[in-house]
Amino acid sequence: MAGCIITISREYGSGGRIIGQKVAERLNIPFYDRGLVEMISEKSGLSEKFINEAELYREDAIKYAGYDVSLQMPLTHVVFHAEAEVISSLAEKGDCVIVGRCADYVLQGRDDVLNVFVYASISNRIERITQIYGDKVKNVKAFITRYDKDRAAYYDYYTDKKWGDMRSYHLSVNSDMGLDACTEIILTAYNNWKDGIQVI
Amino acid sequence: MAGCIITISREYGSGGRIIGQKVAERLNIPFYDRGLVEMISEKSGLSEKFINEAELYREDAIKYAGYDVSLQMPLTHVVFHAEAEVISSLAEKGDCVIVGRCADYVLQGRDDVLNVFVYASISNRIERITQIYGDKVKNVKAFITRYDKDRAAYYDYYTDKKWGDMRSYHLSVNSDMGLDACTEIILTAYNNWKDGIQVI
Repeated sequence: MAGCIITISREYGSGGRIIGQKVAERLNIPFYDRGLVEMISEKSGLSEKFINEAELYREDAIKYAGYDVSLQMPLTHVVFHAEAEVISSLAEKGDCVIVGRCADYVLQGRDDVLNVFVYASISNRIERITQIYGDKVKNVKAFITRYDKDRAAYYDYYTDKKWGDMRSYHLSVNSDMGLDACTEIILTAYNNWKDGIQVI
Repeated sequence: MAGCIITISREYGSGGRIIGQKVAERLNIPFYDRGLVEMISEKSGLSEKFINEAELYREDAIKYAGYDVSLQMPLTHVVFHAEAEVISSLAEKGDCVIVGRCADYVLQGRDDVLNVFVYASISNRIERITQIYGDKVKNVKAFITRYDKDRAAYYDYYTDKKWGDMRSYHLSVNSDMGLDACTEIILTAYNNWKDGIQVI
C-alpha cells in the first residue's frame, strides 16, 4: 500500500505524541494533535478547554450542559460527533498522523489506516513527565494512572474496542525502546504493511 | 544496541513462527523452535511428545508423573526448568530468535532481549490454518481458541506477566499487515532499539 493515515493512541507520559510528530516530520505529512481541538471547537461551538477536558469528565458531562446544541444529548457526545466529522474530513485530504481522539475507531471503515498504540513502563513515564514538567505535577504516578483511566473510559465508551488492548491496533510499541526507535518502527510499518492475509 | 536475542510469542495461526524464521534468515542467526524441544528432551529425559504437549495439559500434569526425576514436582515443572536452562545457555551463545516457551520471561534479567508478540484477526488465523493443514483440523475456530487458552494458562502460571498483554512485550504486531511487513518491522526494532529512556 502506498501511504496511509496513521492514528496514534498512547499512554500518558509514553512520548506517543512526540513519536507521532517525528513520524509526520519524516514523512512530510500533516500532524494533527492540538490543532484538532481548534477544528472541533469551530465545528461544535464548544470551547477548546471543554473539548480538552471531555475525555476526563465523561461521567460528569451532563453538568456542563447549557448550550442550545446540547439540549438533546450530553456535551461529550457533541464533542465526539464533532471530532468524528473533523477526523473523517481530514482523512479525505490524504496521508496524515492523528493523535488520540478515537481516530482509529472513527476511521475503521477505511482500509488505508494504520493504528498504533504507544506505551511505556511506569518508571520511564514518571521520569519523562518529571523531566518535561518539573515539579508542576504533584504525585506524578497517581496523575498518570488517573489520566489513563479516563482515556480508557472515554475510548471504551465511544468505541466497540478496548483501549490499550493490542487487538485494537495493528502495532503496539513500548517507547522504552527509545522514541527514535519507535519512529523507525512505525515508518517501516507505513512503508510495508498491506491490508489482507499473507499465509506464508 | 548492536544485536540482541529476539523472543517471539504468538497466537496460534498468526504466522508468528514463520515470521520468526524469516527474521532469523535475514539476520543469519540461529532460529530455535522445534529444535528447542529436542534439547529440552535431552536435558530432562522426557519425551518430545510430552514436552510439546506440556503447555496444553498444565492442570493435568500430575497424571503424567512416573519418572524418578518427577517425584518431587509435577512433570510440567520439570519441563519448565529444563527449558529455562536450555534457553539461558542458548542466549549465552549470542544473537538468535527463540519462539515460544516463555523465553521472554526466562531471559528477563538480560538487557539484550527484544520481546515480540504476534497476533492476528480470527478470520485470518482460520484461513491460514485451513490453507496450511487443509481439512485435517476440524472446527478450526474452537481449536485455535483452545490452543491459545492453554498457552495463556501455561505462560501466566510460570511467569509474573500476562500472555497477550502488550505490556509483557516490547513490540506487538498484527500479522494481518502481512508476514513480510512484520518481518521488516521486527528487523527495524532489532537495528534501532535501546534499553533505556529517551525523554524527547
